[in-house]
Amino acid sequence: MNEMIHVLSALVENKPGVLSRVTGLISRRGFNIESLSVGPTEDPTKSRVTAIVRADDVAYEQITKQLHKLISVHKITDLTDERAIERELVLFKVNAPAERRSEIIEIANVFRANIVDVGRTSLTVEATGDEGKLKGMEDLFRAYGIKEIIRTGKIAMSRNSKEA
Amino acid sequence: MNEMIHVLSALVENKPGVLSRVTGLISRRGFNIESLSVGPTEDPTKSRVTAIVRADDVAYEQITKQLHKLISVHKITDLTDERAIERELVLFKVNAPAERRSEIIEIANVFRANIVDVGRTSLTVEATGDEGKLKGMEDLFRAYGIKEIIRTGKIAMSRNSKEA
Repeated sequence: MNEMIHVLSALVENKPGVLSRVTGLISRRGFNIESLSVGPTEDPTKSRVTAIVRADDVAYEQITKQLHKLISVHKITDLTDERAIERELVLFKVNAPAERRSEIIEIANVFRANIVDVGRTSLTVEATGDEGKLKGMEDLFRAYGIKEIIRTGKIAMSRNSKEA
Repeated sequence: MNEMIHVLSALVENKPGVLSRVTGLISRRGFNIESLSVGPTEDPTKSRVTAIVRADDVAYEQITKQLHKLISVHKITDLTDERAIERELVLFKVNAPAERRSEIIEIANVFRANIVDVGRTSLTVEATGDEGKLKGMEDLFRAYGIKEIIRTGKIAMSRNSKEA
């Protein structure tokens, strides 16, 4: 099967149970959700779910059809094929003995990332970007030792530039 | 009941079904998950779930006890009381006719946010920060009209500075 990464964006009711119905529906079919982000939208009664799912096209279509049947799901957009804006926020806690601290700060600067916390033996770096940029940072930090990585999961938005 | 916002951070197996078991367990008890972020960690077989849940202390303790019983849940940390680093990434698509564009860019600069897309009648701004900062930007952009907001949901990490 020709599996690919799908970026599913759904507008859902912001109330108990909706999220677990959505994730349950996807995972009952045996698909793993690679990342998931949920947060309130411009309308506080609605939440936006962005899920990254690996599936072939037929299976993905089945998932979206099932999701459409849930009354608490209002709108589903597939941002996979679009030239969408994709972004993720990652916190890296990097091993940083005093003598290597400046190198790590240098790397953070190159990627326009921010140092958000300084410990005795570690630095915490906040970075945003697309997958390629974040993977690049991770590879560089790995040489120093990464104590912890926390990711928000990807969000995606269609480009305004399409309007033009 | 004395409900408050809890920041729950859990290390779980990165495989199908785990996420829906976690969200199901929380929502079965009638608690709404205000925001949720899931992404891979430094160990690709594990995912980190950060959930923002509104509950009183007794109810919250019950939730974490139940979660601990799931074999696919390895570690649960309550980052609520800690001086944790909290961050969220938000994309704002703001109404921006040509004559108001520079004002919006100005606001983005003040908050050290980035313009990630420019359309004929709108700008997309990428911002990261804590709740206060992001709320401040949202309030300012509201005056121009917000077409769309997409949030990653909050992630949290304990501070390295505690080590010192």
